[in-house]
Amino acid sequence: MGGDHGPHVTVPSAVEYLRQDPEADIILVGIPDAIEAELHALKIAPNPRLRLHPASEVVGMDESPALALRNKKDSSMRIAINLVKSGEAQACISAGNTGALLATSRFVLKTIPGIDRPALAVVLPTISGHTYVLDLGANVNCTAEHLLQFGMMGATLVSSVEQKPNPSIGLLNIGEEDIKGNDIVKQAAELFRSSGLNFYGNIEGDDIYRGTTNVVVCDGFVGNVALKTSEGLAQMLASYLREEFKRTPFSKLAGWVALPVINAFKRRVDHRRYNGASLLGLRGIVIKSHGSADSFAFRCAIGRAAGEVRGGMLRHIGEHVEQLRHNIGQNIPNPASAK
Amino acid sequence: MGGDHGPHVTVPSAVEYLRQDPEADIILVGIPDAIEAELHALKIAPNPRLRLHPASEVVGMDESPALALRNKKDSSMRIAINLVKSGEAQACISAGNTGALLATSRFVLKTIPGIDRPALAVVLPTISGHTYVLDLGANVNCTAEHLLQFGMMGATLVSSVEQKPNPSIGLLNIGEEDIKGNDIVKQAAELFRSSGLNFYGNIEGDDIYRGTTNVVVCDGFVGNVALKTSEGLAQMLASYLREEFKRTPFSKLAGWVALPVINAFKRRVDHRRYNGASLLGLRGIVIKSHGSADSFAFRCAIGRAAGEVRGGMLRHIGEHVEQLRHNIGQNIPNPASAK
Repeated sequence: MGGDHGPHVTVPSAVEYLRQDPEADIILVGIPDAIEAELHALKIAPNPRLRLHPASEVVGMDESPALALRNKKDSSMRIAINLVKSGEAQACISAGNTGALLATSRFVLKTIPGIDRPALAVVLPTISGHTYVLDLGANVNCTAEHLLQFGMMGATLVSSVEQKPNPSIGLLNIGEEDIKGNDIVKQAAELFRSSGLNFYGNIEGDDIYRGTTNVVVCDGFVGNVALKTSEGLAQMLASYLREEFKRTPFSKLAGWVALPVINAFKRRVDHRRYNGASLLGLRGIVIKSHGSADSFAFRCAIGRAAGEVRGGMLRHIGEHVEQLRHNIGQNIPNPASAK
Repeated sequence: MGGDHGPHVTVPSAVEYLRQDPEADIILVGIPDAIEAELHALKIAPNPRLRLHPASEVVGMDESPALALRNKKDSSMRIAINLVKSGEAQACISAGNTGALLATSRFVLKTIPGIDRPALAVVLPTISGHTYVLDLGANVNCTAEHLLQFGMMGATLVSSVEQKPNPSIGLLNIGEEDIKGNDIVKQAAELFRSSGLNFYGNIEGDDIYRGTTNVVVCDGFVGNVALKTSEGLAQMLASYLREEFKRTPFSKLAGWVALPVINAFKRRVDHRRYNGASLLGLRGIVIKSHGSADSFAFRCAIGRAAGEVRGGMLRHIGEHVEQLRHNIGQNIPNPASAK
C-alpha cells in the first residue's frame, strides 16, 4: 500500500516479478478493494502464487513511526511483517514510511542475538561493479561495536547473496592528514583488526564509487548524507548535460546523434537498478523500497529480497555473530550492556 | 613549494595571475634556487610585483603537522604565514600539507576573538549557481556552538566576497522520518534560530547541489565525506561516459560529433574553478589549494584570496562575532569554556 504510488505500482510490479521468477510466490498485503482493482485492471485473479492478504489500515508516509506502531495494529505494513514473523512469508518488501518500517520490524521481529541494532544497507554502483554501504540512516549515534556489527552483517550479505567468500570491509573515514577520524571510528578500526573479518582499513568518500572494498561501513548520519549528496550531484550533472545538449541548434543535432550513447550511459547509471535497502540484523528479511519507485524499481527490490532468502542470509548472520564473539574475545559486543 | 608539483605549478600560476589582476602583488616564499629556476624558465626576473622571499625548509606532504610546526621554523609554509601575521602579506596561499597548514596557521595567527576553531570552507557548484560548504575536515568533533560559528563565518564569507546581503544558511541533517539528526545538530538548530542569522533550517545532502541555501554547515567529518564522495561519483560518471563513447565505431563517431557539447559540459563542471578552500576564523587570510592543482586551478585559489582581502572579510567576521554575541545573549559561545 505504501510509497508515492501505492498498489498502482506494487501490484503490477509483483505480477511482472512472478513472470521472471517462477520459483517465487507473492502475498499482496493491504486494503482488498485497492488491490483487487489493480489486479482486475491487469486481468489477473488472485491465485496460489499471488495471494491477497487483507489489512484494514495503511500507515501514512508522514505518520509518526511511534504512533503507527502503537495504533495501527492492522496496517498492511504490520501484517506483512507479522507474516514474516509467523514464517508464512520469508521476506517483507515495502515502499512505505521508512521510520515506521524500521520501528515496526524491530518491534515485531526483534534483532538477531548478538546484534544490537538493525542497519540499512544499500548497493551502489562503482567504476568496476558495485559495493554495499551501511548504515544509511537507521542509526544516528553508533558505538564502535555497532560499526563492527554493521561490517560483519554487510560482509555476510555480500557473501550470501553473491557467493563471494570473505568480502573486504572498509571503514569510512576522512583523509585530512592532521586528523584521522573521530574516536569511535578509531576504536572501530581496532575492533575490526581483531575480528577475523577481511578488514581493508580506513577508506575515504571517493573509495565508495571507486569500489575499493565490497562493503563500506559508516554511521547512519554520515551514510545518509553521502547517499543524498550523491543523488543531488547526479541530478545536477544530468541537468547540466541536458542543458548543454539543448543550447544551440548544433548541440541539439549532436544530442540526437549521441542519443543511443547517452541512453546506454543512462541505463548504466539507472538508480532504479539499485533500489531496495536491506534492513539487516533482524530475525527476518525486510527490504525498504524507495517511496518513489516505479514498477521496474520495485521489482528490483523484490528480487533483492528473494536473493537474501535464497542465499540463506539470516542463518549466515547468526553463524557469523558466533564467530565474531569467538574472535573478539574480551571485546565481545555484549547485547545487554550495549543496548 | 607545496603540492604535487611545487614551484613548477605555483610560480607560472603566480606570473599568470599578476597579468589578469593588475592591482595584486605576489611574494613567492620558498627555496630560492627552485623558484629562480622556474622564473628563469619563464624569462622573468623578480620585480616589485613578484618578489622572492627565501625559506630554507619545506614541509613534506606526508609530514606530521605537529613535527612540522615544532621543527620547521624556516619552512616556506611557516614563513608565508609569518608574513601574513606581520602584515607584509594580506593572505597566504598554499598547496601543501593540509594538516600542517591548519596547525601552523592556527598557532601563528590565532583565532579571531569569539571564534573557537577555524573551519575549512569550499565553494561547490549547484544547479543554478554555487554554494559554500563548511567545515570540510578541519574539525572532527564539533559542538553546537562551533556549528553556529561556522554558519556565521560562512555567511560572512559570502556577503564579503559576493556582496550578497544576508546569505541563507542550511544545517546539514538527515531525512529519515524516524530520526531528525543527532543531539548536536538539534542543539545547533536551536542556536541558529535565535542567532539573528538568515537560518533556512535543516537541509539534506541533495540540497547541497540543489543550491537550496547559500551556505551549508556541517561538522568536518560529514563535510569531508560528502566532498570526497562527490569527487568519487563525478570520476565514476566521467569514466562511464568515456567508456560509452568508445564502445562501438558508431558511438565513437557520435562522440566526435558531440565533442563540443561534451567539452562545454566539462568546462561547466570543471572542479579546478572551485579550487581553494578558505581557512575561516583566523586573524589572517589563508587559502588551501588542492595538492594536485595545476596552474589554472592554483590561479583560482589566488583569486579567492584576493576576493577575501578586497571584500574585507576579516573585519566583517570580527563585527559579526560581536553581533552574534549580542543576539544569542545567554547562549553566547564563550571561547574560554568552549575551547
